[in-house]
Amino acid sequence: MNQINKESTLKIIPLGGLHEIGKNTCVLEYEDEIILIDAGIAFPTDEMHGVNIVLPDMTYLRDNRHKIKGMIATHGHEDHIGGIAYHLKQFDIPIIYGPKLAIALLRDKLDEAGVSGRTTLKTVEPREMTRISSSFLVEFIRNTHSIADSFTLAIHTPLGVIIHTGDFKVDYTPIDGEYFDFQKLAEHGEKGVLCLLSDSTNAELPGSTASERSVYPNLDRIISQAEGRLMITTFASSVHRVNIILQLAQKHKRKVVVVGRSMLNVIAHARTLGYITCPEDLFVSLKGARNIPDKQVLILTTGSQGEPLAALTRISRGDHRHIKVRQGDTIVFSANPIPGNTIAVVNTIDRLMMQGANVIYGRHHGIHVSGHGSQEDHKLMLALTRPKFFVPVHGEHRMLVKHAQTAYEMGISSENIIIVKNGDVIELSSNNISLAGKVPSGIELVDQAGVVHENVLQDRQQLAKDGVITVAASINQDRELTELPQVDLRGVVTKVEKPVLRQVIIRAIENIVKNRWEEFVSDEDKNTINWSWLKEEVENTLQRLIKRELRSEPLVIFILQIPDVSSSSKSKTNQKVYRRRRSTASVAS
Amino acid sequence: MNQINKESTLKIIPLGGLHEIGKNTCVLEYEDEIILIDAGIAFPTDEMHGVNIVLPDMTYLRDNRHKIKGMIATHGHEDHIGGIAYHLKQFDIPIIYGPKLAIALLRDKLDEAGVSGRTTLKTVEPREMTRISSSFLVEFIRNTHSIADSFTLAIHTPLGVIIHTGDFKVDYTPIDGEYFDFQKLAEHGEKGVLCLLSDSTNAELPGSTASERSVYPNLDRIISQAEGRLMITTFASSVHRVNIILQLAQKHKRKVVVVGRSMLNVIAHARTLGYITCPEDLFVSLKGARNIPDKQVLILTTGSQGEPLAALTRISRGDHRHIKVRQGDTIVFSANPIPGNTIAVVNTIDRLMMQGANVIYGRHHGIHVSGHGSQEDHKLMLALTRPKFFVPVHGEHRMLVKHAQTAYEMGISSENIIIVKNGDVIELSSNNISLAGKVPSGIELVDQAGVVHENVLQDRQQLAKDGVITVAASINQDRELTELPQVDLRGVVTKVEKPVLRQVIIRAIENIVKNRWEEFVSDEDKNTINWSWLKEEVENTLQRLIKRELRSEPLVIFILQIPDVSSSSKSKTNQKVYRRRRSTASVAS
Repeated sequence: MNQINKESTLKIIPLGGLHEIGKNTCVLEYEDEIILIDAGIAFPTDEMHGVNIVLPDMTYLRDNRHKIKGMIATHGHEDHIGGIAYHLKQFDIPIIYGPKLAIALLRDKLDEAGVSGRTTLKTVEPREMTRISSSFLVEFIRNTHSIADSFTLAIHTPLGVIIHTGDFKVDYTPIDGEYFDFQKLAEHGEKGVLCLLSDSTNAELPGSTASERSVYPNLDRIISQAEGRLMITTFASSVHRVNIILQLAQKHKRKVVVVGRSMLNVIAHARTLGYITCPEDLFVSLKGARNIPDKQVLILTTGSQGEPLAALTRISRGDHRHIKVRQGDTIVFSANPIPGNTIAVVNTIDRLMMQGANVIYGRHHGIHVSGHGSQEDHKLMLALTRPKFFVPVHGEHRMLVKHAQTAYEMGISSENIIIVKNGDVIELSSNNISLAGKVPSGIELVDQAGVVHENVLQDRQQLAKDGVITVAASINQDRELTELPQVDLRGVVTKVEKPVLRQVIIRAIENIVKNRWEEFVSDEDKNTINWSWLKEEVENTLQRLIKRELRSEPLVIFILQIPDVSSSSKSKTNQKVYRRRRSTASVAS
Repeated sequence: MNQINKESTLKIIPLGGLHEIGKNTCVLEYEDEIILIDAGIAFPTDEMHGVNIVLPDMTYLRDNRHKIKGMIATHGHEDHIGGIAYHLKQFDIPIIYGPKLAIALLRDKLDEAGVSGRTTLKTVEPREMTRISSSFLVEFIRNTHSIADSFTLAIHTPLGVIIHTGDFKVDYTPIDGEYFDFQKLAEHGEKGVLCLLSDSTNAELPGSTASERSVYPNLDRIISQAEGRLMITTFASSVHRVNIILQLAQKHKRKVVVVGRSMLNVIAHARTLGYITCPEDLFVSLKGARNIPDKQVLILTTGSQGEPLAALTRISRGDHRHIKVRQGDTIVFSANPIPGNTIAVVNTIDRLMMQGANVIYGRHHGIHVSGHGSQEDHKLMLALTRPKFFVPVHGEHRMLVKHAQTAYEMGISSENIIIVKNGDVIELSSNNISLAGKVPSGIELVDQAGVVHENVLQDRQQLAKDGVITVAASINQDRELTELPQVDLRGVVTKVEKPVLRQVIIRAIENIVKNRWEEFVSDEDKNTINWSWLKEEVENTLQRLIKRELRSEPLVIFILQIPDVSSSSKSKTNQKVYRRRRSTASVAS
């Protein structure tokens, strides 16, 4: 940690979520000043039962909260702004700068979480320069991405300029006419860029990512051919795509019904800010659409990823209150499934087709393009900025490796390229880049009720796999089971009969109580029993025993009814003592 | 059901697992004779917690076991023979015919399950004709697929010939020189085929599936370029691919270490039967490989799908006992991830790369081809057999729809094509195809301990999502809580403090006990309490209450310690009565 605190070097610390390095939050630190770039969320993997969102471990920022001078949101995607409301509950961020659309979406989130009073939100314009602290002057450079109003950053530091690309693709024909500011990037390349941090999402893909505009003629053809009602789904945040769909609805004289909360929200903000321009009478309500012929209706809906609660998923299950699929409907997936969502998406497609819809999906239709650049786009970014040092970010390990190879092929020497993991501390001087230790990294899992800690998740994993066996027993100070133990099985599969299982459990408990009692008696006072030790020992013993008997590993919960000590001597005479009634319940060996 | 039993029609009933129609078992029934084609297993989806395998619902076959005359296994893949051992425990199958490799693999499985005595296994040769019963004469036609020794079936019935393709691709240059028997298919086409049941796996893909041989030059190049140790993973059952890899090992003078039980097993059988021919000294043990330079070693391993327990997955985690990744290793994934396995596979790749391996993966390398035909292959099958009726099988719904479109484009009228669901009864006469009811379909889930029923799965899903709360309380016949209730939370996330939660629970129980006691008293005998009703009511009430208080839905288990009735009147005077000690524990409203 000495090295981390060495003066006059710049530290860059990616704190990502899950496997994508530096995706969610990137920390820049110089002397006693920290700025943050983005703070998003990730989505849980299958093993993270009951988890709604995944946040990066923020220990380092909690510990260094006094240094935080401000934050920048590069654009309005969930994986870049979705974590801010959570972080503001843990530490202060004095000010957050971002493009208008991101700030509008963020303001909603902070309001909803009741934390909008804890920071100041400030919108910025392209080419604006903002001094966040004495060491950090940030310049906002327009780029192109799947959401409107997205920025690449040039961060002026005492050691030189750091370019952080944010998410980008190279789109020469952007839908909104907001062109990528190559001139500004080239100017920095000419003056000298100390380090480039660049988006690696599509680093495995050769070639260039197609322009968003390439989708237009394909959607145009599909919409013109649809005979009946039309439903189209895409990512709510893909403002340009939504724009194309709305333009085509106008062209083909269809009224638009917008379905799904996030879609309604993004469209509202994008219209207010002028990123989407269309006449008000293009839209109709669901009710209003009932009076319009099918051929004149276009339903724009969420659910492109087969999300269980999204509108189109519910429609496919037949449990959407207002929309039922009809023979003759054309349903268009203008989005590819993200890995991990494939099965949910194809199942949705199957259900829609079974109800008679003509479903149009799949890559060969040309109705989706990525918002992230491919290898040729990465090369252009490297060529324009000509950085001394290069750090691939925003990708899984193999993507970073490919992106590093691209940079190496472009002439950056291998000692000037660094591949990092989340939590790695990159130390940068004007002539050297190196790793200098590690800060706490990892993830924090959150469900609707709060943080899901590791032990809770482990319990859930065990419960999911093999269920739970609850054993409740009363033991008195005379080492007797005072009730027939209650055994309850939930989510457990076994061929062992319950009475047999109960018998095995009784013998195990009696064995501990009879033969190992001394272990739980206090050294000071022979009348004091350490009941919690006893409970723990019985639970562990039963866990082992049940694993052996059932050949599966349900979670075992042992509930010990502790006798009231003052009455324990009396209770013996009146309570039924279970053991005495059973001749077979001999003490087990 | 009357229609199902109508005489002199042929019934075809696909009984599939999960979404793939007719994949696992296809039933052919004529009058009182049934034959089965294949009986495989499917793998569980993410929501099927703790489930190891998925079988189709076999109710119909259990109910009609007396009709079963025999079965045919078309080839040796798990999804075609993996279910037989389970079914033989439920009903008899007098005889099972299949190709040599499938029968060898099946014999192992039946031995392992201890059911090999319950049927007769019989191998068949290409063009062999086997009479299974008076109505069913089966002819075995060589086809090409990813496993060696695979058959298409021509089933001669009183109504005409049914062609069941089995799994197939059209491979003009098969690795083993066993050519697709187009002549025999054409001969049937010339004579007249009543109905074609055809593999739909790749019905969404235009063009033809490339020959297995196309993989050879690409693997050859990669192996020749590898500087150090080489590991290659593929499906163990892809006998042709394994053959290619072994040939290339010989060519490049590398010794082969085979790792993984299924890989060892398939290679052993394939060598015994002559599908793989290579010198014995090509193979070395893991120990033997230690004395050979890295450049002369090729490790052939399981784990191409990121399966948690497979060898390569354990190697990637660093917990394989004998193999550690070394800088300079080249690791080749000669298989594409099956949808649903993508994330497991890319995580494995990332872990291998982090340890310094050069990992070669992805479609653009041309090191994997599918074993299933695409649209042009489907057209050839339709053109050769010229069936009157067409039923696409072995695919998910959208694949069947595409395959049906292909058949329609080939000139089969839409009333002669039928798209089915699992359990649908297809009724076939010489001039008509129609649906005639449905038999019980669906799935049976099996974990290591036995069948996982729907209620068990629902419990596991609830446990996985929100954990479990156990409440144990003693209530006596005087409507009193006789102990402080024990409350145990596992896998539960909540901000509600445990004492507060316990207080809420106590009040809820007391409310029922005090105000609704009469509901649980027997009409005949006022001293008899229906404790199980009481337990159920308390559990349901607590479930609702906890959902409201915690805003999550853990499973609630209520354990009621029932007092011994004979002593209940006495116990009151001696047992501590919990309520009396607490002034705050008033009866809740």
